[in-house]
Amino acid sequence: MSAKAKFIVVEGLEGAGKSTAIAHVKQFLLQLGHDIVCTREPGGTPLAESLRGLVKQVQTDEIIAPQTELLLMYAARMQLVLNVIKPALASGKWVLADRHDMSSRAYQGGGRQLDEHFINQLRVAVLGDLKPNLTLYLDIDPAIGLERARVRGELDRIEQEQLTFFQRTREKYLHIARSEPNVVVIDASQSIEQVEKSLTLALQQALGA
Amino acid sequence: MSAKAKFIVVEGLEGAGKSTAIAHVKQFLLQLGHDIVCTREPGGTPLAESLRGLVKQVQTDEIIAPQTELLLMYAARMQLVLNVIKPALASGKWVLADRHDMSSRAYQGGGRQLDEHFINQLRVAVLGDLKPNLTLYLDIDPAIGLERARVRGELDRIEQEQLTFFQRTREKYLHIARSEPNVVVIDASQSIEQVEKSLTLALQQALGA
Repeated sequence: MSAKAKFIVVEGLEGAGKSTAIAHVKQFLLQLGHDIVCTREPGGTPLAESLRGLVKQVQTDEIIAPQTELLLMYAARMQLVLNVIKPALASGKWVLADRHDMSSRAYQGGGRQLDEHFINQLRVAVLGDLKPNLTLYLDIDPAIGLERARVRGELDRIEQEQLTFFQRTREKYLHIARSEPNVVVIDASQSIEQVEKSLTLALQQALGA
Repeated sequence: MSAKAKFIVVEGLEGAGKSTAIAHVKQFLLQLGHDIVCTREPGGTPLAESLRGLVKQVQTDEIIAPQTELLLMYAARMQLVLNVIKPALASGKWVLADRHDMSSRAYQGGGRQLDEHFINQLRVAVLGDLKPNLTLYLDIDPAIGLERARVRGELDRIEQEQLTFFQRTREKYLHIARSEPNVVVIDASQSIEQVEKSLTLALQQALGA
């Protein structure tokens, strides 16, 4: 196994089971003896967490334009990449991320149907050649995922979108997963035990462990 | 004079006298019978004002990366353009702006020395073909401007930068003014009366009034 620190991302719709999956992946990586930095997006730095609050709060006084939402996601990501992700990787720590760039492409590109070119310009400008070594995408039917999320509590501004929004988001997630390397689709409709087995298998294959 | 609503921007360093100039320009336009919407950047909508607060507050817990600052400026601008500036112009109202895109080019491009290509990608993505019909740039030696600003009260995060930062910002302002149309340089070291005369002349020439 390479000694080089790796950047691992867990992605998925609301209610796909990201938190449980991240706990499992973290345990797996700790057992291999890696130092781990965990992040979440949007967020992960004081400023980025403020932006998370702004972008998720249910607005009553004005509509957040989809383009503005996208720019705020990338502003938060820029801050996290420069102040946390890149320094961690450079110092040999592994980064385990709860969402990263694939979320913007799926939610703002698929869900909000923003222009691909606009998103790509931002991606290139903000991320350069930073790419996750492995993305674990937890795939779930949004009808099931949203029901799980609803049971957990109140929904934020984005989670209040229509089902069709999340169907478009899922389609985009699957499209990216099919067309790009280093993305593994995990069937999140399985039992927790089965999901964890799939995650372990994906990690073993990706890391050669 | 064309009946089409116009977009007029007042630009300049801290202490250049923007507020006084804007009051004068507003009076001039009101006398011509125009409906006017006044904006300021960053800000001008509830969300954009929150972003203004984040970007200007003196941070103690983390450094705001220059690239993040730029993205926040464009997020705020996007929201203002979509929710205020474009609707106003479309409904025949004139827009009088306290700062706009030239500020990002001067402060983040000149002052912070961010990559021009990065800024241009954002500009094109966010603004498309929206351009001010007239920009009145109030030119002042930053040593004088900052002294005026200091007398007014406490300086925010950006205003606390070194003098060389503002010298680079001024150089970029002047470079843009020289190389692009529809920008008029006003010598802001003159007396208020002289500055107001220069503004009136610039407006008369630009508007054919």
